[in-house]
Amino acid sequence: MTGFLTTDGLSADKANQLLDLADRFVEVLHRPLPKVPALRGKTVAMLFFEDSTRTRMSFEKAAKALSADTMNFAAGSSSLSKGESLKDTTLTVNAMGPHLMVVRHRSVGAPWRVSEWTGLPVVNAGDGAHQHPTQAMLDALTARRHFGSIDGLRVAIVGDIRHSRVARSNVHLFTTLGASVVLVAPRTLLPPDLTGWPVTVAHGIDDVLDEIDIVYLLRIQHERGGGEVFPSVAEYVSRFGLTRARAGRMSPDAVVMHPGPMNRGVEISPEVADGPSSLVEQQVANGVAVRMAVLFDCLASSSDPEEESP
Amino acid sequence: MTGFLTTDGLSADKANQLLDLADRFVEVLHRPLPKVPALRGKTVAMLFFEDSTRTRMSFEKAAKALSADTMNFAAGSSSLSKGESLKDTTLTVNAMGPHLMVVRHRSVGAPWRVSEWTGLPVVNAGDGAHQHPTQAMLDALTARRHFGSIDGLRVAIVGDIRHSRVARSNVHLFTTLGASVVLVAPRTLLPPDLTGWPVTVAHGIDDVLDEIDIVYLLRIQHERGGGEVFPSVAEYVSRFGLTRARAGRMSPDAVVMHPGPMNRGVEISPEVADGPSSLVEQQVANGVAVRMAVLFDCLASSSDPEEESP
Amino acid sequence: MTGFLTTDGLSADKANQLLDLADRFVEVLHRPLPKVPALRGKTVAMLFFEDSTRTRMSFEKAAKALSADTMNFAAGSSSLSKGESLKDTTLTVNAMGPHLMVVRHRSVGAPWRVSEWTGLPVVNAGDGAHQHPTQAMLDALTARRHFGSIDGLRVAIVGDIRHSRVARSNVHLFTTLGASVVLVAPRTLLPPDLTGWPVTVAHGIDDVLDEIDIVYLLRIQHERGGGEVFPSVAEYVSRFGLTRARAGRMSPDAVVMHPGPMNRGVEISPEVADGPSSLVEQQVANGVAVRMAVLFDCLASSSDPEEESP
Repeated sequence: MTGFLTTDGLSADKANQLLDLADRFVEVLHRPLPKVPALRGKTVAMLFFEDSTRTRMSFEKAAKALSADTMNFAAGSSSLSKGESLKDTTLTVNAMGPHLMVVRHRSVGAPWRVSEWTGLPVVNAGDGAHQHPTQAMLDALTARRHFGSIDGLRVAIVGDIRHSRVARSNVHLFTTLGASVVLVAPRTLLPPDLTGWPVTVAHGIDDVLDEIDIVYLLRIQHERGGGEVFPSVAEYVSRFGLTRARAGRMSPDAVVMHPGPMNRGVEISPEVADGPSSLVEQQVANGVAVRMAVLFDCLASSSDPEEESP
Repeated sequence: MTGFLTTDGLSADKANQLLDLADRFVEVLHRPLPKVPALRGKTVAMLFFEDSTRTRMSFEKAAKALSADTMNFAAGSSSLSKGESLKDTTLTVNAMGPHLMVVRHRSVGAPWRVSEWTGLPVVNAGDGAHQHPTQAMLDALTARRHFGSIDGLRVAIVGDIRHSRVARSNVHLFTTLGASVVLVAPRTLLPPDLTGWPVTVAHGIDDVLDEIDIVYLLRIQHERGGGEVFPSVAEYVSRFGLTRARAGRMSPDAVVMHPGPMNRGVEISPEVADGPSSLVEQQVANGVAVRMAVLFDCLASSSDPEEESP
Repeated sequence: MTGFLTTDGLSADKANQLLDLADRFVEVLHRPLPKVPALRGKTVAMLFFEDSTRTRMSFEKAAKALSADTMNFAAGSSSLSKGESLKDTTLTVNAMGPHLMVVRHRSVGAPWRVSEWTGLPVVNAGDGAHQHPTQAMLDALTARRHFGSIDGLRVAIVGDIRHSRVARSNVHLFTTLGASVVLVAPRTLLPPDLTGWPVTVAHGIDDVLDEIDIVYLLRIQHERGGGEVFPSVAEYVSRFGLTRARAGRMSPDAVVMHPGPMNRGVEISPEVADGPSSLVEQQVANGVAVRMAVLFDCLASSSDPEEESP
């Protein structure tokens, strides 16, 4: 694979092949020595132009579990503050010899530009409100491991769809893998034009709660409340929050997912977050395995993860 | 050992066993290749919710000298700024699969909560004004290596006892190991209630200087001066500062210790800091060995540090 | 070698020996597994008291490609903010047992002090407006690899010479290796006294453009413009900027170098930065190899980079 930029256009076959590989890495991560030599000598450059904790740590853990080295570019203490362009920063890091770049940037499309400029495989770790494909892959892995298959699952994505790269990546991947997706949000938090999105829409969580297998909650950004896009947090919770009462009306086999960080008491109640239907921690754990699969698929010359492969 | 949270309740036997192990690691650190494979494949997560340089670097060096990997969570660039709770941050990092967490937090008790939430061994790297047990262990190692034994030593801890987790950890450990401790501070810098503390108290350094083996100076935070808890830095120095003149009145075998960072010219004069009675650099060096001992004791399945033990 | 502090006084023989070694590391860096075990078990401490991205990443990559460990001290989150002196910070890091320190500091001479205090080999990664010797070495490596030899080359260094440690290091190294150097700058951006500098001076880039082999452009700091040291950025560009038109008047074999980060549109036009005469990316790539050579020369006991040598 020459990079992993988007779930838009990813075939079901390729997605399932990566998920199969990720299943193998879940097993590796449970060993007493949770590490394989597969990418020894390879260097993964992490270019995070936006702050991140969980995604950066997850990629670093994945790289180390494959015995790769990492190089960290953090926007805070960098030449960016001296006005260097994205292109020059990218070419500078590239000239130091990494084999792959993981890129997060607030601008839509930045990882594609980095890929063109460098010729390296690039993994998109989030570009603006556009794509976050390894998040979708870890969500799919979590769903597939829990339900056995994604085909036929009914998924509700609830919250700020409009500004969410997670929602976009998940809509593509889940529908490609045979799930049906309903978006649940106030009109102000939906994209203005949904033409071409393979989804249905509902405007209250209660309309769909009893007929879905996965309630996928997005993070609500408090600062958008209070009049701008929804009247108040209380109003949002009353129509879209997954309260304990609502969770009780879900199908007994249904599960709750969230990309984190959670706003307990806003989009999800604390009891639901910690309850038995929550797969939130499995999502994080599977994130390491999925990123190992993506890095391995981009960089390994052998197909055997147990072998060193430079 | 299932973690290392406090020196309160630590038995003399256990403390000495760890110090014996630390002595072995001091030897390892003096080898041409100062590294053992003991924790290869283990991952130590560093959760520093308060800034730190020396303590974080010391734990990282200790982990690497044992061939463990590290994961770094730094509060600055994290989801915490998005309002994520300590619990969710902890569970997220935990789901990425570390084998142990090193935790620093401004709130008393935070490392215990992290331990309950994760079931992992947790090493307390400082919680509020409560405990900093590996600091006490490195101080004890330094004293034991210098004097041969801690039993019977007379220790004066001088300065802001009230706000000091270092003082609390050291009082417990030194008295457990047979030393006597006198606290030397103005009333405003002593805890309001010393019931149960196995210590005596003096209100000027000159009262005790000729009868002690270790003068343990705490850092004075300038910003507390000027009326709030002591009248001025000059006033503090005049009664509590270890000036060259005072150092000259110490017993010839007595030593000076300080957890750093030092305020030269406040609690310690530059000549004393750099003088032959100062053990400050040995403290830092021994910190790496002590942290190796604690990490090894928490994580190794073998009792032989020269062996790989996953 | 007991450190690498300055190019002032570095002999041509020693410089060429290091460049020969760097040539070998360029070859190592092009292997499928771009790594040698030479410094396994050694620890390189990075003390960056000034922000840096490219230089710090380059040293880290160099250390890892030699299988050394690194320790990072970043001024931002450190005890420095608690007022600790440079000396105490240095001695603290030193006590943790690194084998070499890489130091960047805004004060001239700081790396020499660090060397005296610790007795360790120290590599100067930039001290004030004084020296940045590994930058000069990577520039020399780039020139030597491109032209075959530096002897007889004609080099123009253009821009803010006065505040540039890069200019100082390069003047010494290039002239030692047989090149002639002309400084091109407005009087306000030249050092007030050039006595003893083995250079000639020109006050406009057009005066020298047709007779040089290397146009070495320095970064212009926008904030100095607007009256303080030059009238305006437009005025600067009109006399000193390497525009496309000017680049067209260069000798066909001449090349353009820049230490980065570039101000496209100020000291260099975008077309020239990306054009075939630009060696900017080679400079960055060679930076890793040069720093490997310096670290290896300071730390290895074997002379064979393919062998482990503690």
